[in-house]
Amino acid sequence: MNGHQIKAITKVPEPTLRRLPWYLSNVKLMRERGEEYVSSTQISKEINIDASQIAKDLSYVNISGRTRVGYKTDELIHVLEDFLGFTNIHKAFLFGVGSLGGALLHDSGLRHFGLEIVAAFDVNPLLVGKQLNGIPIYHSDTFFEKRKEYGVNIGVLTVPINIAQEITDMMVEGGIKAVWNFTPFRIRVPENIVVQNTSLYAHLAVMFNRLNFNQIK
Amino acid sequence: MNGHQIKAITKVPEPTLRRLPWYLSNVKLMRERGEEYVSSTQISKEINIDASQIAKDLSYVNISGRTRVGYKTDELIHVLEDFLGFTNIHKAFLFGVGSLGGALLHDSGLRHFGLEIVAAFDVNPLLVGKQLNGIPIYHSDTFFEKRKEYGVNIGVLTVPINIAQEITDMMVEGGIKAVWNFTPFRIRVPENIVVQNTSLYAHLAVMFNRLNFNQIK
Repeated sequence: MNGHQIKAITKVPEPTLRRLPWYLSNVKLMRERGEEYVSSTQISKEINIDASQIAKDLSYVNISGRTRVGYKTDELIHVLEDFLGFTNIHKAFLFGVGSLGGALLHDSGLRHFGLEIVAAFDVNPLLVGKQLNGIPIYHSDTFFEKRKEYGVNIGVLTVPINIAQEITDMMVEGGIKAVWNFTPFRIRVPENIVVQNTSLYAHLAVMFNRLNFNQIK
Repeated sequence: MNGHQIKAITKVPEPTLRRLPWYLSNVKLMRERGEEYVSSTQISKEINIDASQIAKDLSYVNISGRTRVGYKTDELIHVLEDFLGFTNIHKAFLFGVGSLGGALLHDSGLRHFGLEIVAAFDVNPLLVGKQLNGIPIYHSDTFFEKRKEYGVNIGVLTVPINIAQEITDMMVEGGIKAVWNFTPFRIRVPENIVVQNTSLYAHLAVMFNRLNFNQIK
């Protein structure tokens, strides 16, 4: 176990985890511009977040900067990618090959951020047995055996809301440890199971409301 | 202007706007089960949020419940959908037909939540002039004229991070009023422009960290 991994097991605050990818993308741009070193002050100017907040966030990551010079750009990128889990490939199953599920199967870009959807599940006879973007679609009934075969512990949930809880229960029973929930349904899970909610519809609702507000004010 | 629209122009707190779609999906399920009325206490039991919080959130929406009986299910669904902007179709342009951009073009389901991507922009000669899921892909240089032609004021940003700011600036100059930013880049916009950040990668980072934490603790 190296230093990065030891650091990675501390429970990092969610706001920090959400900001770190911003720093990563900015530092990558600075590397493109040929910067050998980068400081939190420089990042701060680019993205309008307090330098002290950035330094604090980066303190969770196992990297040390040099006074007045900052962090070595290459090293910071490497350490951040490692810390955020983007350098390990995490295999995942996707449940529900509807419109959004199918779209996510097309998004091979998730692989660059550490997620590889290796198989999908559905009950639609028109889909079962087929492949989408090279990813096999199996019948949901075969999930338990496929789980053992692939050794997957992440499930991406893109089913209709009326079966969201039922499919979640099945995932958990089969050994899934983390659910990436794209449904607008608030699923219930045992305490030791991770749920990450990404409701595109909730984000749309916020955007529409703000847009109406700006147009009328 | 009816009552719903008048209410919709108040600046609703973001946490409320994020919870309302949860209530909507649950109330839809209750309708499927044949419930004619639904109370905040019932919703509370289903999704594990305080009934008082639910009642407070629903107070932003222009609907009145009856004591002990609750809200009329059909009416609550209609009013929530209307309030959240899911019943109006908002036209949008998408910028950057890469892996994620292409995936979003495949997701016709966004239409049920009020967003219709009517055209996409890219500079890749292999894409320009083609269609994806029936949606035309134009050269980015034609954005200004297409903006006028389509009268669109929402832009979906799925370009590489190194041009995220440049494309945002172009959108704003062309008259786009709201940017749905899927890049991990923190874009800067004038004060009157709405930005909704949806960084799938940041969500992945949070999920991976929590998963590692659970597995090692």
